[in-house]
Formats: sequence, structure tokens, C-alpha cells
Amino acid sequence: MVTALASAEILLEVPFHDVDAMGVVWHGHYAKYLELARTALLRKVGLDLQDMGAHGVLYPVATMTLKYVRPLLYGERVTVRAELLEYENRVRIRYLVHKGDGTVSTRAETTQVAVDAVTRELRFETPDFLQEAVARLKGGAE
Amino acid sequence: MVTALASAEILLEVPFHDVDAMGVVWHGHYAKYLELARTALLRKVGLDLQDMGAHGVLYPVATMTLKYVRPLLYGERVTVRAELLEYENRVRIRYLVHKGDGTVSTRAETTQVAVDAVTRELRFETPDFLQEAVARLKGGAE
Amino acid sequence: MVTALASAEILLEVPFHDVDAMGVVWHGHYAKYLELARTALLRKVGLDLQDMGAHGVLYPVATMTLKYVRPLLYGERVTVRAELLEYENRVRIRYLVHKGDGTVSTRAETTQVAVDAVTRELRFETPDFLQEAVARLKGGAE
Amino acid sequence: MVTALASAEILLEVPFHDVDAMGVVWHGHYAKYLELARTALLRKVGLDLQDMGAHGVLYPVATMTLKYVRPLLYGERVTVRAELLEYENRVRIRYLVHKGDGTVSTRAETTQVAVDAVTRELRFETPDFLQEAVARLKGGAE
Repeated sequence: MVTALASAEILLEVPFHDVDAMGVVWHGHYAKYLELARTALLRKVGLDLQDMGAHGVLYPVATMTLKYVRPLLYGERVTVRAELLEYENRVRIRYLVHKGDGTVSTRAETTQVAVDAVTRELRFETPDFLQEAVARLKGGAE
Repeated sequence: MVTALASAEILLEVPFHDVDAMGVVWHGHYAKYLELARTALLRKVGLDLQDMGAHGVLYPVATMTLKYVRPLLYGERVTVRAELLEYENRVRIRYLVHKGDGTVSTRAETTQVAVDAVTRELRFETPDFLQEAVARLKGGAE
Repeated sequence: MVTALASAEILLEVPFHDVDAMGVVWHGHYAKYLELARTALLRKVGLDLQDMGAHGVLYPVATMTLKYVRPLLYGERVTVRAELLEYENRVRIRYLVHKGDGTVSTRAETTQVAVDAVTRELRFETPDFLQEAVARLKGGAE
Repeated sequence: MVTALASAEILLEVPFHDVDAMGVVWHGHYAKYLELARTALLRKVGLDLQDMGAHGVLYPVATMTLKYVRPLLYGERVTVRAELLEYENRVRIRYLVHKGDGTVSTRAETTQVAVDAVTRELRFETPDFLQEAVARLKGGAE
């Protein structure tokens, strides 16, 4: 298993409006939970959506994979852990969602690629600000 | 009751992902249904979100009122009628949502005010393009 | 102005997925924010959606009114205060959403009516468990 | 490439409320589009969520994979094609989302597994009603 370069964990409580007619969180809503953990992770590395825009680069999600193991229920206190696995060429993040009772709910992974904020064309080199952010991270205490 | 200056009606089928744990459409999702009908109405008048941006004006929703009479169920074929009541100073639209069986589900109303697309400040005069759009509407065949 | 029988306040941070193409929170998403504050308020009174179901009563939202004053932005730390104004015949709650800078973003109100969990018919009397919950609240320290 | 046992295609127009601050459909909303096509496909085979519940079986989504190729824009007319690849042991469906200009937007796949509607435990055999539905499909004109 790949070692994470950085990680972050968030806690959330399942809101009523995410629960479907089967009494469990509708599978599409997990993308929101992943995004909250991804935002926390990227901020920890010193990046944020707004920073990225300022650097003329956007990082749209290019792939997303989810494996649903156990459903989440209304009011449950959920943790979502995000781990940065790659940052060169593409940003790859692995997620682990735990239920309130500590069992695994969902495993997921996303990749993001750099695109020019204006032309929306792919950028194949890793932007300097991202290289520097991860270098700082490796050099210092996480 | 105010006479509508223009109206539009859309048909939609309630998707599974809008139904909550009580087996009915979650009350917050109706804002989406209203928006679909509002978009159809404004396009009929010759306006669209993109046109508005091109004219340097945005029309954010300033107020929204909903009165839920009968719940909507999964798979139900719903109609949403939108009627333009005012366009000077503010855009005021009235909505009527009907269930598949023809009974009333929801009554609603929104108002929108013109703001400058750049400064986001309120514009108190009715933009020319909107005045002209409604004039065309009144003068011609709807 | 009506005095609140009880109140609760929540803090939330605006997620990226709630921001629309105009760069502000899409107006329909506020229904989620109100629900989070309402849930906190009702739990404080000793009620929860699950308790209600256990008592054979549901409290669907019957009316919702929103007045948008200032838009919410990505990453902003928002407070939502919910105040219980009535609990007899119907549950009436007033909401006040504040932006991160302390200014008012949105004022809102919802009413909920009791329906039988099985027949979905209106119940005109206030259920005992709700009367008792509010009595406890009035008698004791909030 | 696996041959599809059955397929269905839906047309939708990208609503304003699905577009994010980058001006494209937020990646999590695609789960809704897939669901609409999946529902159309399963109904064509003679199945629906409500039928399944009546047979004491639910089919929650167990895995979902998305590969985003080109973003979708506001107002774009999108087609979503769903193809049934497997129905024994698990239901496996492949999706292809096309942009208004005919280019590929997104490729996706979901798997669903049968669980008992009451116990929520996995059911390893293919339910009779599903076997029969697919048999009818193979035997007759699609």
C-alpha cells in the first residue's frame, strides 16, 4: 500500500437531507463528504481552491471511484480521512469513511489534473506552487 | 389575483435521489423545480441567465416563499407552472406545482432584483433589455 | 417581535459544492442550513426526527419563507440561529443566518404541522410528548 | 468489450443549480444523471425500485467509478446511455455521457448487489424476478 505524503481527517454528522427513501445516505452524496476531507487535506498542504485560481491553475476531478461497504444512517457521526498519495502530474487522494461505530463505511479515490484556468487545457508539468507546498510538507513536521 | 404577463409550464418526473427518508420529496428540492420552470419562463420572454450576464446584470433570487400542500412521491409526473407577475423594479414570479393526479402540491413565489454583474450593487431602474423583452411580449403573440 | 421559547445556533463553513456559477451559495441550498439549525433546536427541546416517528407523528415542513439579504461565499464561516416561536397546533421557527463578518445574510421562517405517521393525515391537537417537552423547557433552565 | 444485454438512453438539459463556481457541472452531480439513465434501463427490463421492494429485495449501489473526460456546461443538452452488462450475482451497468456537441463527457460504471429488504443482508443468488426479467428480454424483441 502506498504511503501517504500527508493526511487530514474530518468529522461530520449525517444530515436528514442526505438520507434517501431506503433510510441510508444516498450514494451520490458521498462525493460531498470526500470533498470536505479533500479541502481539509489540501489546505493543510497549504493549498486551497482560491490559491489555485490565483496561480492560474485549476484542479478538476478527473476520476472518482467509490466502494460502498456499509451504509451511513441519519445522525451518525462519520469520519472521513483523506490521504495524499501523489502530487506530480496528477493529484491522487485516497479516502476512508468510517461509521460512528468505527467500522468501515466506504473506500474511495480521486485523481485531479492541472488545467490552465483560462484555456482549460491540460498542464502536464506540476505547478511550482504545488511542488513547493509538498516540499515544505516533507521537510517539516506534518 | 394578479394577471400573469407571461407563463411557462414544465413537466418533470420525481427522481429517486430527491426522495427523503419519509418517502416524499424533501422540501428543499422544490427550489430546483421552481428554477427549471423559471428558466423556461424567462427564456420564453427572451431572457436567459447568459443573456443577462451579457448585459452586465444579474438577477439573484431575493425572496422565496413556499406553501407545501401535498407531498410529491417517487416517479410521479409533476407539472410546474411559472407566471411572470412583475418585471419593473423587481421580477416577481408565481409558481404552481401539480401532482400527477392533477391536485395541487405546492404554491410558491420568488422575487429577483437586478444587481450589477461586476459590483454586485442593486440597480433600481429596470434594464432596457428587460423592458424591451416584456414590451415585445405584450405587443405580440405570446 | 415574538419572544423565542427556545433557541439554538450552529456554525458551518460554506462548502465548494454549494457555490453556484455566480460565485455565491445557490439560493436553494439554504434549506439545508436551516434544517441543520432546526435539528439542533428540536434536539435541545428533547425532540428528534426519530423520537417523533416513535410517537407516531411526523412534522413535515408546511411553509418556508426566505429573504436573502447578502450572499454567502465559498469558505465563509456562517452561523445559523433557530428560534422556536410556536409549538401549539403548528411548530413555527424563525431563522437568522449571519455571514462570517457578522452581517446578516438571510432571514427565514418555517412552519411544520403534525401528521399521523401512518395515514399522513393532519393532527390538529398538539401531541403530548411535544407539550411535555416544551413544558420542561419553560420550567427549567434553558 | 462486453456486449450489453439491454440499454437505455436519456436526454437531459444541464440545470443552473448543477453548475459550480468553475462554470462546469460539479463532479458529484453526475451520480444523479447516471441514476436517471439506470432507472430508465431497469424499467425497460421490467424492473423498478418499487417492484424490487415488493419482491423483498433492494439493490443498493456497491461501487461507482467515473472518468471525467470533458466538462458539462449550463444549458447543454446531454445524453446518458446505460448498458446492462451483468445481472447474475450483481447488476453491472456501464454509462456513457455525451455532450451536446456529440463528444464524450464521461464514462462510468456501477455495480449493485442484492440485499434482503428487511435484514439488509447480502443475497448471493439472483432473485427469480430478475432472472425472469432478463430471460424475457433475451427471448423477445428489445
